[in-house]
Amino acid sequence: MDARSHDDFAQRLTAVASDTEALLEQLLSDPPLPGELARPPRLLAAMRHAALGGGKRLRPFLAVESTALFGAGRAGALLAGASLECVHCYSLVHDDLPAMDNDDLRRGRPTAHKAFDEATAILAGDALLTLAFDILARTEVHSDPQVRSALVLDLARGAGLGGMVGGQMLDLAAEGRFEAKRALTQDEILTLQAMKTGALIRYACRAGALLGRADAKAFEALDRYGIAIGKAFQIADDLLDVEGDTATLGKAAGKDAAAGKATLVSILGIAGAHKRLDELIAEAEDVLAPFGAKADTLKFAARFIAARKS
Amino acid sequence: MDARSHDDFAQRLTAVASDTEALLEQLLSDPPLPGELARPPRLLAAMRHAALGGGKRLRPFLAVESTALFGAGRAGALLAGASLECVHCYSLVHDDLPAMDNDDLRRGRPTAHKAFDEATAILAGDALLTLAFDILARTEVHSDPQVRSALVLDLARGAGLGGMVGGQMLDLAAEGRFEAKRALTQDEILTLQAMKTGALIRYACRAGALLGRADAKAFEALDRYGIAIGKAFQIADDLLDVEGDTATLGKAAGKDAAAGKATLVSILGIAGAHKRLDELIAEAEDVLAPFGAKADTLKFAARFIAARKS
Repeated sequence: MDARSHDDFAQRLTAVASDTEALLEQLLSDPPLPGELARPPRLLAAMRHAALGGGKRLRPFLAVESTALFGAGRAGALLAGASLECVHCYSLVHDDLPAMDNDDLRRGRPTAHKAFDEATAILAGDALLTLAFDILARTEVHSDPQVRSALVLDLARGAGLGGMVGGQMLDLAAEGRFEAKRALTQDEILTLQAMKTGALIRYACRAGALLGRADAKAFEALDRYGIAIGKAFQIADDLLDVEGDTATLGKAAGKDAAAGKATLVSILGIAGAHKRLDELIAEAEDVLAPFGAKADTLKFAARFIAARKS
Repeated sequence: MDARSHDDFAQRLTAVASDTEALLEQLLSDPPLPGELARPPRLLAAMRHAALGGGKRLRPFLAVESTALFGAGRAGALLAGASLECVHCYSLVHDDLPAMDNDDLRRGRPTAHKAFDEATAILAGDALLTLAFDILARTEVHSDPQVRSALVLDLARGAGLGGMVGGQMLDLAAEGRFEAKRALTQDEILTLQAMKTGALIRYACRAGALLGRADAKAFEALDRYGIAIGKAFQIADDLLDVEGDTATLGKAAGKDAAAGKATLVSILGIAGAHKRLDELIAEAEDVLAPFGAKADTLKFAARFIAARKS
């Protein structure tokens, strides 16, 4: 990929991040919406702390670019992306809690329960998750309620018991919290990661296909792309924990290794993990081949995800 | 209301409770659904602990009977009711946490974080909330996706920042957690209660009107009915805290009074609160008058809610 396409990619990523920030800022502003009785200031402040001012907004980017592949509206895709970001940020707030991963820092800032308190953090997470579905059900997302309903169902399936939340549960179990610790098999690690981080990334791509009314074949392509980059994202994350440094990450490096956490890197080794990353990028590019040059941005995104430094 | 109508009411309430229990049992059974990668047993067990085997299932009852008023399908109403119960039960799990109300008992059984652990309880609550929206988006709820989408939006609005979660936040603030404690005005108490407990009860009735495709006038009647019985429910709750006993309640009586919690009872006095209850029942019956005898069960429900002993 040449420098020009890299610049184009970087520009598009920044544009989505900036639009998402503005949208979340608007969604998390003061005046109550119809059906809301009041927006308690402390709760709103904690939600803003959790959702604003941070992150690459990778999931919204994937939703927007997947939608663009079908020439569907950007405004709806940005809303779906903002909804996704609400889910992602709520999960970080709850995962950071003392009873869970007990983290003080997130993106170089105090975690929500440090900046506020535990009760407020729990409620802010709950309210962000609820807001995600509020957003998706709005007519502005898509004029066809069938599309909105499908988005809600798909997000819920990916974010709940059998997806993201279930993945966090498996992760806590793998730490030996509830029974004697044992080494996970490669299959168990893959399932854990597909749930904990993979499901939302996959959903971002599926959401684009839903918004774009993709046919079955195109939907499957986006789905497979999402699965591949979800896996790549996690391997890159595990490599960063080994190879990265705390300042760049904005969170503690080496933490997983110190905790003896089973990752693919621990099974495949660093070189093996890099090789697996290359295979996943190739797979992601391959499934998008039928879309031709239209899919260049998404193909570049796969490489970006694999090579990211934070 | 004569003995026969009381028996009829009791029978209908029991029937919905039993159908809701069976439905939740089925929803929280082992096999993963399409789109779910696995259902971690410990998480599923905690969700079952929180959602099964308890409660009068009042919210599902209101959803089912409100739907019946329009002759719409019972199966969809039961699913909407089960979804509501997922939200209600998740809120109890999170409210019971040490960082929130720190309760060990709920319905005479250990709370989720006591029966499991804090991390599992937080995740079980998250997964139940997510499941609520999963359920609502299913075609079995209603064949028209516009109805499903409206149900999702209405539930999210009532359950989140400007509804139930916001109400819990106001309740914690009223305890003096974040600033010096001061007496709430009657208006502040009404807003807090309308959000914390009123919003879901109101939604149960609105859900019936949505499922029944009520016209604007009928929708407003159900909405006003829901507001009135939501207020009645809370006053009855506050009276029980003063007049009830721990064994019947299945939770600690006198707790609110001991905590110096501001309730309408503390402002109106016991006699004044009973008088207000009577007014609310009259209002609930009044707004349903246009429906004639069809609405007898809902009218009776208003009296039941006001007179409940647990």
